Amino acid sequence: MKQAAVIIGAGDATGGAIARRFARGGLTAVCVRRTKEMVQPLVEEIRNAGREAEGFGCDARSEEEVIALFDKVEADIGAVQAVVFNIGANVNYPISEMTSRTYRKVWEMAAFAGFLTGREAARVMLPRQAGTIIFTGATASLRGGAGFSAFAGAKFALRALAQSMARELGPQGIHVAHTVIDGAIDTAFIRDNFPDRYALKEKDGILDPEAIAENYWVLHNQPRSAWTHELDLRPWIEKF
Amino acid sequence: MKQAAVIIGAGDATGGAIARRFARGGLTAVCVRRTKEMVQPLVEEIRNAGREAEGFGCDARSEEEVIALFDKVEADIGAVQAVVFNIGANVNYPISEMTSRTYRKVWEMAAFAGFLTGREAARVMLPRQAGTIIFTGATASLRGGAGFSAFAGAKFALRALAQSMARELGPQGIHVAHTVIDGAIDTAFIRDNFPDRYALKEKDGILDPEAIAENYWVLHNQPRSAWTHELDLRPWIEKF
Amino acid sequence: MKQAAVIIGAGDATGGAIARRFARGGLTAVCVRRTKEMVQPLVEEIRNAGREAEGFGCDARSEEEVIALFDKVEADIGAVQAVVFNIGANVNYPISEMTSRTYRKVWEMAAFAGFLTGREAARVMLPRQAGTIIFTGATASLRGGAGFSAFAGAKFALRALAQSMARELGPQGIHVAHTVIDGAIDTAFIRDNFPDRYALKEKDGILDPEAIAENYWVLHNQPRSAWTHELDLRPWIEKF
Amino acid sequence: MKQAAVIIGAGDATGGAIARRFARGGLTAVCVRRTKEMVQPLVEEIRNAGREAEGFGCDARSEEEVIALFDKVEADIGAVQAVVFNIGANVNYPISEMTSRTYRKVWEMAAFAGFLTGREAARVMLPRQAGTIIFTGATASLRGGAGFSAFAGAKFALRALAQSMARELGPQGIHVAHTVIDGAIDTAFIRDNFPDRYALKEKDGILDPEAIAENYWVLHNQPRSAWTHELDLRPWIEKF
Repeated sequence: MKQAAVIIGAGDATGGAIARRFARGGLTAVCVRRTKEMVQPLVEEIRNAGREAEGFGCDARSEEEVIALFDKVEADIGAVQAVVFNIGANVNYPISEMTSRTYRKVWEMAAFAGFLTGREAARVMLPRQAGTIIFTGATASLRGGAGFSAFAGAKFALRALAQSMARELGPQGIHVAHTVIDGAIDTAFIRDNFPDRYALKEKDGILDPEAIAENYWVLHNQPRSAWTHELDLRPWIEKF
Repeated sequence: MKQAAVIIGAGDATGGAIARRFARGGLTAVCVRRTKEMVQPLVEEIRNAGREAEGFGCDARSEEEVIALFDKVEADIGAVQAVVFNIGANVNYPISEMTSRTYRKVWEMAAFAGFLTGREAARVMLPRQAGTIIFTGATASLRGGAGFSAFAGAKFALRALAQSMARELGPQGIHVAHTVIDGAIDTAFIRDNFPDRYALKEKDGILDPEAIAENYWVLHNQPRSAWTHELDLRPWIEKF
Repeated sequence: MKQAAVIIGAGDATGGAIARRFARGGLTAVCVRRTKEMVQPLVEEIRNAGREAEGFGCDARSEEEVIALFDKVEADIGAVQAVVFNIGANVNYPISEMTSRTYRKVWEMAAFAGFLTGREAARVMLPRQAGTIIFTGATASLRGGAGFSAFAGAKFALRALAQSMARELGPQGIHVAHTVIDGAIDTAFIRDNFPDRYALKEKDGILDPEAIAENYWVLHNQPRSAWTHELDLRPWIEKF
Repeated sequence: MKQAAVIIGAGDATGGAIARRFARGGLTAVCVRRTKEMVQPLVEEIRNAGREAEGFGCDARSEEEVIALFDKVEADIGAVQAVVFNIGANVNYPISEMTSRTYRKVWEMAAFAGFLTGREAARVMLPRQAGTIIFTGATASLRGGAGFSAFAGAKFALRALAQSMARELGPQGIHVAHTVIDGAIDTAFIRDNFPDRYALKEKDGILDPEAIAENYWVLHNQPRSAWTHELDLRPWIEKF
């Protein structure tokens, strides 16, 4: 039976690189975004490289859809060996301008969806007592800041989830990890909106998604005698 | 004009003690629970002691109700000088048994309601460039644990809120603090459900709500040249 | 029998304010610096205010001298109820310019002396199962930074000591606390060397030693049902 | 010119595995312990496997010896590309039984020697603007505990050094990392002294030194666009 790596949030540069990396490692990359159309280019890119990939549309905030996704992957594609939750939702507003709608939505995307993903990943992995679940965090996972009530709130919650699941599921054979991505990533968004920052790319001053992905692959392959729960990643010139 | 201290979650032993302490300090204790009836005994107790108190019913998860609450207090009672957000929602389930309904509800009670409270508190305090906002945290604010995905998630998010608001509002004259209550509190719940734990009361082995409240009063009275943002409280014999 | 509060490092503004505060609270302030002459003005100031104080010279890096100090205070002055370790040693050098002599000296002053003080304080307090030991920390207790290898190294070590002692001695009745002083303090040093910073004093933008001291007094008086182990203090406009 | 990896503390299972891993990666493993004789078996083992290794005796607490060591390696062996500081000094005494001699010695071995190593590593690496320096930490790097005043004190100090050096040297091209080894390692010491613990080896319940070493190798090979500063490692069944 084939092995699957499910990437929730395979839309951005990081998610795409992670999908490619796990596909290169021999797993079927299950690429998930809001709609199947959105991930089709990534799926084709992976297939064109001679690897296996499948695309799925799923609103990760919907319990039904997340349950159905994992059921379908297990039934039709293969045993889920790795799950990466990679949905961000960075917003920045002064506290008095933060609407309850935004505060809630950021949490739903970055924390509640992470909970649904984590729980369903655990559900299919527990009978096999094996698997890796990685949650993508950020600087805001570790500290709040002016304007960050919603984003840090969601990222802190996701980290609490990662810690709680690691402590519960580790002794059941499931490796739960959390990364702290600290710095700008080489994405179209940074290129278009922060050209000065993007210019640092020349001297490796922004995070290369392929380098991030390589670390996720390392985490997945750690033997169980020495697991890492939390790992930070930042460019060499980044202040921290 | 009178000065008001708004206690959101004045239902438990801690909330009650905080209300009494701030009333003893000369503020009108605005005691808030889901319904006005629920806080009436506390309001009367404070009044019988010769202090001032008012009771309000408010679902702190409702944006409209929280906005209306702060408007009403400012209009009818006095300038809000202190706000304490004291709603807990401790639950413990293995990740696979955690329902999305519970996960969401715990967040709504312990984090989203905290956001609404904090934002509205800031709204009425900012024109005066003064005031104290205290969020009650717990051990689960600092670390996740088996069974704690929901509770730690909400408490982490509340701490992120406290940090974000402190960094934004401190330089605008508003003191935002977060406490970490670590240990059992002397409550009817502990008495009825954990008799062994409760027996430690004899040697001060559980937290006295009056002692907790005294520290909140200290935080409120710190001169602005030396503010504390985070303070832990635990019984002397508590392991940590 | 009288009660004594021993302030190791009663030389700076903070140490002096702490000595005055504990004296005002009714304890005999035992003021300690390198030589007795150095603390004499402080001792006289306290006595002139109608309170009790004694001055001692002691090199806190010398095991013999620290042992002798505590023996003498217990024999001649009173039961040691509170001990404050308040010696700093802030230096800043790039790693390549940090001499081994400086690295060692900073540790001896800020960490090793703290260990000797803490151990001897515990020795005289343990038979009574009571007392408070407070270690003064700084921002560098929580994070290293460029140039801070020695100072952060010593301050981290002091915090490790405070945590270790708190966990061991708390259940034996001794309250061990650690403060994190984050910001410039109103001292002659800041006035003379950082005039721009000092100018913030007008709007309470630097730490008032009296306000710091008040918090130490609060810590000492916390009932044992609700002890604080770590407390941060910073001016309202300080970035953190 | 050859490239060297200097392992300070190549005496235990972990240091040996790290030396072997870096040798397998093509660097000359410079194995350092108190005396050259002590590392000779490791050096020969590496050479017998067809890799390159050199042994050195050096008291890492001696400034002169550490300076001479790095000078000699650069002159006779090759450019130092990686340095691992791997000296531990775990002791556990109640605070009242902790002698000043032990407290100092633990710091000298686990922190001061780390400072000398880090500074000299930086000295030879800075002209090349390249290199990796890894400090081995432990659970006691993150929290103090009863009996741990000396060990946690030294480990906290070492972590402060790692953070300070990382923030200073990262932008100069030198990757400084700190690991947190959390759990028993598969060593003769554990086998002989903690047989129950050692029995967990059967199900990968203690840390395999080869697995630890692999992570050090990964850290050394991270491209500079995505460096990790701190990484924890523990067996899957370890409580944390």
